[in-house]
Amino acid sequence: MNRWRLTIAYDGRPYSGWQSQARGVTIQDTLETAVAQICGAAVRVHGSGRTDKGVHALAQVAHFDAPEGCRISEPEWHRALNALLPPTLLVMRCARAADDFHARYDASGKIYRYRLFLGEVLPPLEAGLAWQLWGCIDEPALRKAARLFVGTQDFSAFCANRGNEGEAEENKVRTIKRLEVEEDGPFRTLVCEGDGFLYKMVRMITGSLVQVGRGKAKLEDLEELLANPAGRKAGLVAPADGLMLVRVIYEK
Amino acid sequence: MNRWRLTIAYDGRPYSGWQSQARGVTIQDTLETAVAQICGAAVRVHGSGRTDKGVHALAQVAHFDAPEGCRISEPEWHRALNALLPPTLLVMRCARAADDFHARYDASGKIYRYRLFLGEVLPPLEAGLAWQLWGCIDEPALRKAARLFVGTQDFSAFCANRGNEGEAEENKVRTIKRLEVEEDGPFRTLVCEGDGFLYKMVRMITGSLVQVGRGKAKLEDLEELLANPAGRKAGLVAPADGLMLVRVIYEK
Repeated sequence: MNRWRLTIAYDGRPYSGWQSQARGVTIQDTLETAVAQICGAAVRVHGSGRTDKGVHALAQVAHFDAPEGCRISEPEWHRALNALLPPTLLVMRCARAADDFHARYDASGKIYRYRLFLGEVLPPLEAGLAWQLWGCIDEPALRKAARLFVGTQDFSAFCANRGNEGEAEENKVRTIKRLEVEEDGPFRTLVCEGDGFLYKMVRMITGSLVQVGRGKAKLEDLEELLANPAGRKAGLVAPADGLMLVRVIYEK
Repeated sequence: MNRWRLTIAYDGRPYSGWQSQARGVTIQDTLETAVAQICGAAVRVHGSGRTDKGVHALAQVAHFDAPEGCRISEPEWHRALNALLPPTLLVMRCARAADDFHARYDASGKIYRYRLFLGEVLPPLEAGLAWQLWGCIDEPALRKAARLFVGTQDFSAFCANRGNEGEAEENKVRTIKRLEVEEDGPFRTLVCEGDGFLYKMVRMITGSLVQVGRGKAKLEDLEELLANPAGRKAGLVAPADGLMLVRVIYEK
């Protein structure tokens, strides 16, 4: 095997998300095109997970198998990939991986960041990098609500359906180890670490916290959705803009 | 008179610079279109100075005269302008100005920042916001060279020609009060404060500092260009990417 592990960073704004698709430019397609140009063969690049349209990454992890005969060194792969990739999507690290390394199945956790902006005018260089909340936010209530999500729970009510068959039966229990609110001027950053995240889970948790901050949902509403999801879904999905995949954790 | 003063921030990446022109989207055109939509008349917006294509601003200052009959309050102007402007170009502050206030002629100084990146891979979210320097940089030499520019001097060799008539006779003496190098991880930020800047002056000073850092120019070369410009020009113009207008100073 000739397996490679990439640590990738991207500005999500110009991309239609991670996953290869017929329309729009995706992260996966852009990477696969670059890999194919270098090794002269079509190669699938597997990510640790999909990120949605507009979501950013500081350190997404992916792997791919180069063709057996392909003799390209680490620094050559790194340089060649970045020479072909656009400045909005680059390989931060590139290394040989064990034959059985899998970017998705081996990931034992992830850290996401979600940035909220509470000021009057979002600075133009922050456009697409934060969610501007208009009006007053009850911050103590928001912080209190954040604590509800920590622990091992059924997050059925905090994930969107992808429309896959068998999805309803899928295990929706996940463990959130940490959900903290950091303050930096008019910005508030939610830092969320968990063993895995369901589709749109961070954005639905963020949306729910904001609803509590706006006085449009109560702590008890969220407690109820966590305790008895019973086919119900949290109401507000935060926009992709403020979301960033910060780290993928491999513990083994 | 019905004069207004705007403090404007922009991401320079999508714009062809400040100045109104036939082709490309400019900051001035975008502002003038928004003002005209609000007050129903064509109005000239005067900036404190032009910024080039790709140059960013945290706090550019401009003024305009609304038509005499136009009764729009401060918060109304502010809200209406930002509702019409794109997220990459916004009004941070909006206030009534004295009848004789002039954004350009009253400016007594400006502060610019130029960001250099010394690392291996420029993080994608920094694309267009810094100049990546490949290879080794002699930082002590660069810092030493920066000190040469402080003071009142003839900067003829550190400005580009705009091709205006009478330009050669124009006074090219300016005072740089401060030119400091700040360190932040792999980034170095040049902070430059002066009473005024000639066309491309900050970028030509930056280019010259980088040439010294690369060992391609000597301190004496820069001293000579400052002491005896005699029609000569510094060789390297730094790209627009790393440049940001941080503040316009009005002292009177």
